[in-house]
Amino acid sequence: MGEFDLIARYFTRPSPKAALGVGDDCALLQPAPGTQLAISSDMLVEGRHFFPDVDPFTLGHKALAVNLSDLAACGAKPLAFTLALSLPRVDEDWLASFSRGLLELADAHGCELVGGDTTQGPLNICITVFGEVPVVAGRSQALLRSGARAGDDIYVSGTLGDARLALEALRGRIALPPALLSDARNRLEQPTPRVALGQALRGVASAAIDVSDGLLGDLGHVLRLSKVGASVEAPLVAGLMAVTRHPEWSSELLLSDTLQEYVLAGGDDYELAFTAPPSAREAVAEAARQSGTPVTRIGAIEAQPGLRVRGADGQLLTRRYASFDHFG
Amino acid sequence: MGEFDLIARYFTRPSPKAALGVGDDCALLQPAPGTQLAISSDMLVEGRHFFPDVDPFTLGHKALAVNLSDLAACGAKPLAFTLALSLPRVDEDWLASFSRGLLELADAHGCELVGGDTTQGPLNICITVFGEVPVVAGRSQALLRSGARAGDDIYVSGTLGDARLALEALRGRIALPPALLSDARNRLEQPTPRVALGQALRGVASAAIDVSDGLLGDLGHVLRLSKVGASVEAPLVAGLMAVTRHPEWSSELLLSDTLQEYVLAGGDDYELAFTAPPSAREAVAEAARQSGTPVTRIGAIEAQPGLRVRGADGQLLTRRYASFDHFG
Repeated sequence: MGEFDLIARYFTRPSPKAALGVGDDCALLQPAPGTQLAISSDMLVEGRHFFPDVDPFTLGHKALAVNLSDLAACGAKPLAFTLALSLPRVDEDWLASFSRGLLELADAHGCELVGGDTTQGPLNICITVFGEVPVVAGRSQALLRSGARAGDDIYVSGTLGDARLALEALRGRIALPPALLSDARNRLEQPTPRVALGQALRGVASAAIDVSDGLLGDLGHVLRLSKVGASVEAPLVAGLMAVTRHPEWSSELLLSDTLQEYVLAGGDDYELAFTAPPSAREAVAEAARQSGTPVTRIGAIEAQPGLRVRGADGQLLTRRYASFDHFG
Repeated sequence: MGEFDLIARYFTRPSPKAALGVGDDCALLQPAPGTQLAISSDMLVEGRHFFPDVDPFTLGHKALAVNLSDLAACGAKPLAFTLALSLPRVDEDWLASFSRGLLELADAHGCELVGGDTTQGPLNICITVFGEVPVVAGRSQALLRSGARAGDDIYVSGTLGDARLALEALRGRIALPPALLSDARNRLEQPTPRVALGQALRGVASAAIDVSDGLLGDLGHVLRLSKVGASVEAPLVAGLMAVTRHPEWSSELLLSDTLQEYVLAGGDDYELAFTAPPSAREAVAEAARQSGTPVTRIGAIEAQPGLRVRGADGQLLTRRYASFDHFG
């Protein structure tokens, strides 16, 4: 099968929202009047972002999910995406499954595949995603990393650390009961981008970021760009790992320090970390209800620079959590 | 050097046209009122699109040039781009040179780097480019592949076949005098996207495409989408190879059939092939003058389906030219 047949068979779909979709030199998008276009690009590489034997359905899902997560962090409404794909060979079963995982998630978010590229080479998936953000009275409603202010509450959506737990189990470094591994693995391989929450937080949150490299590291970007510091309450955060609520869970499985590190700095969570003033607590709760997304308050923004992790007794935990750095 | 330092050092620049550039979850673009956004994405893979020892400066240039060429084919004005980069290791000399080649071309076209991704893996460069196309009285001014009509003239910009000639020489399949190789190699490694010509052809050309896979193959896309056929005059086209005008040129170097194939189906040319009605000949000439880009009329669109290549005597040349297909 040639490049053009491959695109026609697996990656060409109607794109009613786009002025022009797949098949010409460019796609054409016409953002609604009074909106900005939010753009993000993520590249997934075999061995770095996924195992060579990963189920292609979940890989298709994840490749788009991590991009939608960036839109969510800006409060943008998904519109369209391009897919550039390098494949070692044409494997029709693989492509059918990959494109199904990709396009099911795309359809669920009304995000149209409008263009891209295919070539032969080591497996590499590069998606660029486009979303819409309203501009009201000349002000962009996009959630930025730079808007946190001293006194703001810090929140995180959903659960943290499960993806890292699964990763360590799949690498053979820890053993997990099958049902627990299955749940954790689902979080690793099919993350849920918090698209509805992001949009509901427009006008409510003061800053937001998606947790891809680990909570503390990503929160660090917010602090740096907002020129503030923060305290985070470790016990609150540690309670956020979903699998710890699992009936098969046994505390012998993991040392609690390791567990805590997965939650605070595990990465690959694709939850939203965001800030909002205490006056907005009811509005945050309403955004969580509206979007059907659990949200937990985990700390506060402070004027003093730096990120402090405090234990149950309020004392500082001095251990350092290394954030995931792709060249670290 | 970590991922964030790498981005800060080599890929972070002021982006005055963008509402928000590198550094947040998303970039924000606000297209001018009454415009559409043209989007294209191209992925370059080592060994497939460039030699492992290619000069990183020219690689940076080419990675953006092939994307700008897609904008040119739509008549779009470059605005911004994202860069996703997978690198086997952090080599600062390589990165300095690559980013210089990339950003010099970007600056020349006012095309701002607004975001992207870096990761570790086999060398892979994925650029997604954004341009602006006016919408006049509700009609997009974008040049499409689908607009060619029977009776239209067919044109091509610049020269063809030189890139393929260089490729064959670099692969050791043919020998070229040094000065000639240097010229041909420059066309292969630093193609000139016909951005000004594309914009000048808005409202003049009926259809356009950029010649990346070979003239006949790319013209075939125009014919298929426009539901027409065409005749192309081989001698006119064959005269378009720049290096054949070179003083060191010797006809013994290549069989003329091979030469003709490079021109008609060599690929990697990044010229524009376009159509326009005979009534627009003066307007086409004016667009060529305005943009300082040579343009040659090479044939005509016909109602009869299929692409016919005719010799000097008008007779059909039956040999088939295979277009470059990435999985062919």
